[in-house]
Amino acid sequence: MKRKGFERQNIAQLAGYVPGEQRSDVAVIKLNTNESPYPTSPKVQDAIATVGIESLRRYPQPTADRFRSTAASVHQVAIENVIATRGGDELLRLLLTTYVDPGACVGMTDPTYSLYPVLTAIQDAKVVSIPLEADWSLPQNFSSQINANHCQLTFIVNPHAPSGRLIGQAALQVLASEIEGILVIDEAYVDFVSDEDHDLTQWAIASDNIVLLRTLSKGYGLAGLRVGYGIGPVHLIEPMLHKTRDSYNLDAISQQLADVALGDQAYAKSVWAKVRASRNDLKRALQDLGLAVSASESNFLLATVPSECALSAEALYEGLKAAHILVRYFADDRLKDKLRITVGTPQENAQLLAQLTALLRGGQSTASR
Amino acid sequence: MKRKGFERQNIAQLAGYVPGEQRSDVAVIKLNTNESPYPTSPKVQDAIATVGIESLRRYPQPTADRFRSTAASVHQVAIENVIATRGGDELLRLLLTTYVDPGACVGMTDPTYSLYPVLTAIQDAKVVSIPLEADWSLPQNFSSQINANHCQLTFIVNPHAPSGRLIGQAALQVLASEIEGILVIDEAYVDFVSDEDHDLTQWAIASDNIVLLRTLSKGYGLAGLRVGYGIGPVHLIEPMLHKTRDSYNLDAISQQLADVALGDQAYAKSVWAKVRASRNDLKRALQDLGLAVSASESNFLLATVPSECALSAEALYEGLKAAHILVRYFADDRLKDKLRITVGTPQENAQLLAQLTALLRGGQSTASR
Repeated sequence: MKRKGFERQNIAQLAGYVPGEQRSDVAVIKLNTNESPYPTSPKVQDAIATVGIESLRRYPQPTADRFRSTAASVHQVAIENVIATRGGDELLRLLLTTYVDPGACVGMTDPTYSLYPVLTAIQDAKVVSIPLEADWSLPQNFSSQINANHCQLTFIVNPHAPSGRLIGQAALQVLASEIEGILVIDEAYVDFVSDEDHDLTQWAIASDNIVLLRTLSKGYGLAGLRVGYGIGPVHLIEPMLHKTRDSYNLDAISQQLADVALGDQAYAKSVWAKVRASRNDLKRALQDLGLAVSASESNFLLATVPSECALSAEALYEGLKAAHILVRYFADDRLKDKLRITVGTPQENAQLLAQLTALLRGGQSTASR
Repeated sequence: MKRKGFERQNIAQLAGYVPGEQRSDVAVIKLNTNESPYPTSPKVQDAIATVGIESLRRYPQPTADRFRSTAASVHQVAIENVIATRGGDELLRLLLTTYVDPGACVGMTDPTYSLYPVLTAIQDAKVVSIPLEADWSLPQNFSSQINANHCQLTFIVNPHAPSGRLIGQAALQVLASEIEGILVIDEAYVDFVSDEDHDLTQWAIASDNIVLLRTLSKGYGLAGLRVGYGIGPVHLIEPMLHKTRDSYNLDAISQQLADVALGDQAYAKSVWAKVRASRNDLKRALQDLGLAVSASESNFLLATVPSECALSAEALYEGLKAAHILVRYFADDRLKDKLRITVGTPQENAQLLAQLTALLRGGQSTASR
């Protein structure tokens, strides 16, 4: 009596999200999922030592108020402008759950963070995917395409992934005023922007349709902890905070450690400065190897392998992988001649460059064009 | 240019879930949210000491395989029969997301766990709420009412909350064979069942429409950690595991600590035995005070305050609260003359009984009938 077909149609048709490769079996240089090359603040280690099992017996504070209060203080907004989430991913889901009807449209660029279309499909909403220009800028008619499809919500990752390109506040203001729905600006990589004056928070909280996404996974070395947060006007934050969020979305330990990590801004800023310096060094070195590298304000670089190279991007990816160096390769049409490389420590970057040099000189890779 | 009304209609109409009262300001005897009166295994404390910030730098294992493997071993099922979730609450949400279309019906009893109707409303599905009999048993026509409404999914909390009543496997088998949709058996409190032969896991994984919910929040003293899991046939677990679950739903620390806690079955069983003994003692003592107490296979008791008592249930709740003893009071029609009391340590139970005795003798409470 096997009654199959319990799955909703949109779920049955869905191919799930495939996270970047994680390997724990061998020592790898992991430059494929944009984690921080440096651990989080040492104060977090001190905080771990204070966690007692008695404190885990009870339910955690439901809305992570202490962490939200620290986030509010860091960004000089009110605690009501902040929602704490299980990584940025939970915020993306909550935005769709709360603001997008099944059957409605969700706008995004092509390429973009590959989770957006998956979460949109889970909500049984339609993806409106608008190709970026050759230089990864938004096309002139982006807003009009969004509005023509009545997108209830639009995702922009800024700095952009996988290119690293940054859209400035002036252009975003035009965009936000033009589109009729909610604009989600996914700032997962914003900590690595060179211009320290780039700060959208005051604008966002005063807006009627902007939500910013932040995460501790990249800039705070805490991808394993799963903590992110959203910043926006109260009328957009409150329904997610008090209605659609799982009642206790953040466990007690994550709340405590995330609070300590976010609170140590001096340490975090020192890490960001090191990553920026390494990014600029790595970019020059990749260019010296003959690769074309997009301008990046993020902690990764998108490198194009020219057609005259001895090896294709895919062959380089495979060759690096054989040498236990992971970078990200996307098979998509516009990306198949490129590699996305997370900025590592100076030592990791040097090992990457040495291996790339060897591969490009030929003979050390089994894969060839 | 304030464009309000971004919220979906079903969300705008929703009143969010209200968790049981949490107070951190004063020392309270907390018998209102069914946490364990004992901390988790001391091995978890040892595990906390091994957590290093370097390990938090990378993304966690996406599907919590080590924890799932331990759960599979504990229950003698395959790892593919298990999904690890952020508390049982995440599993409830994933079941709705994956198996219930907006507009469709979800079955449940009245009363039941008050989160079910909230999550159902978030999915824009309809609640079919079927009143239990006076003794909290299912009405004879339960299945036919479920089927008449074409419920795609039905939630049964077993042991029942807030009464503690257990439905045995034979009755559940009849129910599961009769209903046309998925049957979710929420076993949040199953660790406290006296009959150690009560075990639905082998039946569930061989079924076509059963999913069991388990949690570490009650029986493992880890409400603060937010870890639960589902057990069911692969065709029901897999879509949630690989499609609708947030990519990294469990952080690295939770995965590690939950694995250790679940793995220490000997310790957990010793706690459950102590709670059962205290439950039986507390029940007798409450009856001696003149309260009617439902038979409970859970870690709480539902006590009815007879109308001839000097104080109403609500007045007793308020009187206990004034004495820093929290129990749960529900204003609902069928529950307004009752208190749900979590079984505490023998010392906590004694303090509760002393205060109740004083209140019932009059004079020590400001609230009166």
